[in-house]
Amino acid sequence: MNPAQIIKGIRPLTEAIVAGREIDRVFVQKGLSGILMKELLSLLTLHNIPFQLVPVEKLNRISGSNHQGIIAYISSVIYSSLDHIITTSFQSGREPMVIILDRITDVRNFGAIARTAEGLAFDAIVIPSKGSAQINPDAMKASAGALNHIPVCRENNLVSAIRYLRESGLQIYACTEKADQDIYRQEFKGPLALLFGSEEDGISPAMLKLSDFRVKVPMKGKIASFNVSVTVAIVGGEVMRQKGL
Amino acid sequence: MNPAQIIKGIRPLTEAIVAGREIDRVFVQKGLSGILMKELLSLLTLHNIPFQLVPVEKLNRISGSNHQGIIAYISSVIYSSLDHIITTSFQSGREPMVIILDRITDVRNFGAIARTAEGLAFDAIVIPSKGSAQINPDAMKASAGALNHIPVCRENNLVSAIRYLRESGLQIYACTEKADQDIYRQEFKGPLALLFGSEEDGISPAMLKLSDFRVKVPMKGKIASFNVSVTVAIVGGEVMRQKGL
Repeated sequence: MNPAQIIKGIRPLTEAIVAGREIDRVFVQKGLSGILMKELLSLLTLHNIPFQLVPVEKLNRISGSNHQGIIAYISSVIYSSLDHIITTSFQSGREPMVIILDRITDVRNFGAIARTAEGLAFDAIVIPSKGSAQINPDAMKASAGALNHIPVCRENNLVSAIRYLRESGLQIYACTEKADQDIYRQEFKGPLALLFGSEEDGISPAMLKLSDFRVKVPMKGKIASFNVSVTVAIVGGEVMRQKGL
Repeated sequence: MNPAQIIKGIRPLTEAIVAGREIDRVFVQKGLSGILMKELLSLLTLHNIPFQLVPVEKLNRISGSNHQGIIAYISSVIYSSLDHIITTSFQSGREPMVIILDRITDVRNFGAIARTAEGLAFDAIVIPSKGSAQINPDAMKASAGALNHIPVCRENNLVSAIRYLRESGLQIYACTEKADQDIYRQEFKGPLALLFGSEEDGISPAMLKLSDFRVKVPMKGKIASFNVSVTVAIVGGEVMRQKGL
């Protein structure tokens, strides 16, 4: 990790957040207390910045001992408001199209998906605050810079975000190998969200339940699945074809 | 590099080749001579195994000083004969479909492409002997094991291989951002080969000239290109859709 990507200490982090720096995630030393710490924790909560209580040894491993109990990773992107993205898209007369990633943790996969989504003219990528790939310089590199262009929306509760998208008129297409319907027999139209699940265990059941359609890319070989970034590319390409974009 | 993936020394390598082990590539110390060496070099040529003359320092860096002037990398796959693949496919009543990769050097991209090609039921991947990604355990891992299933054909001369494919009745579709025709307006039918170029400078001019069609995936964003494994996925998916596979 490039040291320029890290902020150490309570005060420096508090100042960075107040100044509007985007923070990807924070490690907080277990057992720390004090008024400054309390203020920082409420600031993190207020700004939806994910944090994790960890033993001091973990912090020491990351950056020696001069961290004062706080290590924060600066994000390589500026997060966007999902509400703002959807509203803007509708207002400009387009049909919003977003990609929802349920716990994609591989940084290179995440970057590759961002590059593809940007190239296919999706409006945004929606991810959960916890359990997603770190959006660091490696992700930026894998995206070939696309993360500078495609908005990323970070949601505390992805289930609520999906509900919000449905209420806004988007249809949710869950892309899962367990679907019966193949994407080439599915009609994709209107405002929509494509939902993809984690490399390990797919889409969370609560999100699957909220989806309007379940679709799959037909598999012909002996290997049971495509890489998730390949699935995004194939489904996204088919959506673009059907919409004549 | 796992030491089990390396063979050192003239005699051990000679024996390995004679015993049918697949060798990915060989580094030979500059200035070495002798009858055993001469025999080895003609064996390498006979078996189409790429080798490179390098200074002794390079060999020392790879594996200390006990290499006797020869370091060979064992391939993680068994190479197939292109002729055999095409003939078998025609004989079984199918229309052969292959993917040609002109100097794809990134091991993870290569592995990802193999996984996609296998899942989309392509018959083989065709690569040049020189200037391709090493087919090592990292490539195997990125392919999720697909490299155990999809045949890889390694050709000394990729231009001749393309000529052979054309003479066998395959149409060559060069996939390049510089094409005018977009894949959704292109008809893909019959026996075919999809040709993709290097991450740096695309498809070689001699191969472009031999192709029957030039097609591109339409790009809508600000980033000028897709990752090559994503392009393979989108074009391959569209071929599958049109062929109703």
